[in-house]
Amino acid sequence: MSEHVTIDKLAEHVGQEVTVKGWLYNRTDKGRLQFLLLRDGTGLVQGVAFKKELSPEAFEAARSITQESSLIATGTVRADERAPGGYELSLSDLQIVQLAQDYPIAPKEHGIDFLMERRHLWLRSTQQWATLRVRATVIRAIRDWLDDHGFVLVDAPILTPAACEGTTTLFETDYFGDKAYLTQSGQLYNEAAIAAFGRTYCFGPTFRAEKSKTRRHLTEFWMVEPEMAYADLDECMRVEEAFVSYIVGRTLEERAEELAILERDTTPLEGIAPPFPRISYDEALMILEEAGESLPWGEDFGAPHETAIAARFDQPVFVHRYPTRCKAFYMEVDPQNPELSLSVDLLAPEGYGEIIGGGQRTADLELLERRIVEHNLPREAFEWYLDLRRYGAVPHAGFGLGVERTVAWICGLHHIRQTIPFPRTLGRIYP
Amino acid sequence: MSEHVTIDKLAEHVGQEVTVKGWLYNRTDKGRLQFLLLRDGTGLVQGVAFKKELSPEAFEAARSITQESSLIATGTVRADERAPGGYELSLSDLQIVQLAQDYPIAPKEHGIDFLMERRHLWLRSTQQWATLRVRATVIRAIRDWLDDHGFVLVDAPILTPAACEGTTTLFETDYFGDKAYLTQSGQLYNEAAIAAFGRTYCFGPTFRAEKSKTRRHLTEFWMVEPEMAYADLDECMRVEEAFVSYIVGRTLEERAEELAILERDTTPLEGIAPPFPRISYDEALMILEEAGESLPWGEDFGAPHETAIAARFDQPVFVHRYPTRCKAFYMEVDPQNPELSLSVDLLAPEGYGEIIGGGQRTADLELLERRIVEHNLPREAFEWYLDLRRYGAVPHAGFGLGVERTVAWICGLHHIRQTIPFPRTLGRIYP
Repeated sequence: MSEHVTIDKLAEHVGQEVTVKGWLYNRTDKGRLQFLLLRDGTGLVQGVAFKKELSPEAFEAARSITQESSLIATGTVRADERAPGGYELSLSDLQIVQLAQDYPIAPKEHGIDFLMERRHLWLRSTQQWATLRVRATVIRAIRDWLDDHGFVLVDAPILTPAACEGTTTLFETDYFGDKAYLTQSGQLYNEAAIAAFGRTYCFGPTFRAEKSKTRRHLTEFWMVEPEMAYADLDECMRVEEAFVSYIVGRTLEERAEELAILERDTTPLEGIAPPFPRISYDEALMILEEAGESLPWGEDFGAPHETAIAARFDQPVFVHRYPTRCKAFYMEVDPQNPELSLSVDLLAPEGYGEIIGGGQRTADLELLERRIVEHNLPREAFEWYLDLRRYGAVPHAGFGLGVERTVAWICGLHHIRQTIPFPRTLGRIYP
Repeated sequence: MSEHVTIDKLAEHVGQEVTVKGWLYNRTDKGRLQFLLLRDGTGLVQGVAFKKELSPEAFEAARSITQESSLIATGTVRADERAPGGYELSLSDLQIVQLAQDYPIAPKEHGIDFLMERRHLWLRSTQQWATLRVRATVIRAIRDWLDDHGFVLVDAPILTPAACEGTTTLFETDYFGDKAYLTQSGQLYNEAAIAAFGRTYCFGPTFRAEKSKTRRHLTEFWMVEPEMAYADLDECMRVEEAFVSYIVGRTLEERAEELAILERDTTPLEGIAPPFPRISYDEALMILEEAGESLPWGEDFGAPHETAIAARFDQPVFVHRYPTRCKAFYMEVDPQNPELSLSVDLLAPEGYGEIIGGGQRTADLELLERRIVEHNLPREAFEWYLDLRRYGAVPHAGFGLGVERTVAWICGLHHIRQTIPFPRTLGRIYP
């Protein structure tokens, strides 16, 4: 057998005989000529089996192999402009590893429930493959940027004794006789970590037992949450715009092929760069009024509002200083106006909505104690969090970026369920 | 105020006046001279406050500031061989941001329960700081190596409908009326992912509701699980030894200071390099017999056995081909001997025990169906997993590396509870 080469490296082997190990994606039967579209996880290449160039057994394998059968193919790499990917393989041998019978996902259209029920197989389809490769790159870009900008990864726990933002949307489990909840955010833990490390982030799965069935909700999703000591709202926005611009730029650079498969028009993404526009909540309300989507002061935005606001801008837009009552208990109060919080959300363009929520957290012990009472939170569970204001409190800020919403935006996908390998939604926990 | 500089960058500012924002770690009072040990999350530096060089208010702040108060200090950077870190700050100004009263963790010895109850503060202590910085580097090394060797990150779900390795040690939650479990391993999902991506990994928190209270167990821990299509047991071991050697080497390179703080003798780590010794389970039993720790054939190793086996080697040692009955239902059978599985564990030296478990998974549908019956697993929950053998099965292998055990080994820590920011153990879910 010739050297095993992955499809993404075929360009380095033009004129050589190599072996590819993978699966059959599609086949076109022209009698003495069989066109086999092969995939191995790194890409696609067309294998050409010409009857007179293979042994009778190998040609019979090429003629009879079915969709998604596993195979080992040997052939010579030829540059061919007409071929998908620019190269093809003139086959000299083909072995079927396992013959797949009646693979359920045909190249025809299937309904979303049919496909989600077969998510373990659907991942092999080109669009899903492309989306999840973009996801992997987005995640790498996130980690690299943070690691290279002085943020220390400090994993927050998943099993927690108390809710970060209310108790109605929590998954509960028995913890050796006590109640425990799946985390909705690592932020409170990040606030402990910054006093040890200065700048930190956590990055893991988070959970919301929400009964909402929208295109923007999953019950299990990944969130990265950076937090910074000695940082205010402005610094938070500066970090966010540099961070998001890097993620978009690096993904465009490394995943052009995948974005092309997804037919994503990348023009709007190519212009993403700091500074992002900054508008206040009050200014956002005026935009909504002009757009015929007015909202009473004090209410939070829904998806249509976010879309209407973002439609005014080519860049992601910061909306800052939401009413205190819209936001979580730990938000810092605006010294100019106590009804406002030093909060900021980042809305993606093109109708993709909020991708970041964050802002400055209060450093004040008494304010926090009052808020815990106002929000009916169990004080005992927050004693450790109050300690952070007793011992070396500092002005600090941070934010959470949702991975799936960011991937949906970059890929141009309407629904976030395709941006995670095995989505968990109101109606789905299988496979 | 002068330019804000982090302590790890002071060397670039010798002779300049800079501002450091952080906390007081310790103070030595010499009357007109106050030695303040400052930390800001990136490192420690000694600030010297000489009465005649500060305003009366600033000197009073220096004289009265308490442990873990937050502060903003301005001073000139001076190289000083005697100073911790090699530099000191001749202070010209000091502002207290928040004065901490009676910080509970004094520089004296505290019991482990006292410290764990205050984990949110204990993180600031130098040894905890150093350990978690090593952890962050180990995780970055893991991801970089995999990303750079053709492995695609494909996150496995946390909420799962069925148990991977038995149901007795699962955390259960209600999923909108159905039962769901917190994952113990993403491996089964990885096996779906490799058919789409060739080589993949998942990396996230995993859970075991085990009632064991040992120095090697956490109920929540992080595991990285690479999986490879068209790979056998030998390939698995080659990848593991390259991977582990890289992680150790990069950590030594980037975290020498932290390992020195931990008083880790790095000599044994410096020699870690492929190839690692490979012994069979049967050979391991002979070693145990010689060591006076004999074990009947067919039983799995406990911690003392692992220590006795590893003591024979300077490198981590592979133990392969465990009895089928010791291992999970999906393990491939050794074609030479059906009572053996193509499994392999990697035992760390110096008594740190198993850090990797893995091996070749069976590609055979019928064998897998039989095993599911033998292991009393609910067949419906595994239908999707069986599909992977129906549609394009390939020889494949993979493994799981436990982050906390690896960090414990590299740091030379007896107990793994300090290798994770907020440990979850049988008796602890707070803070």
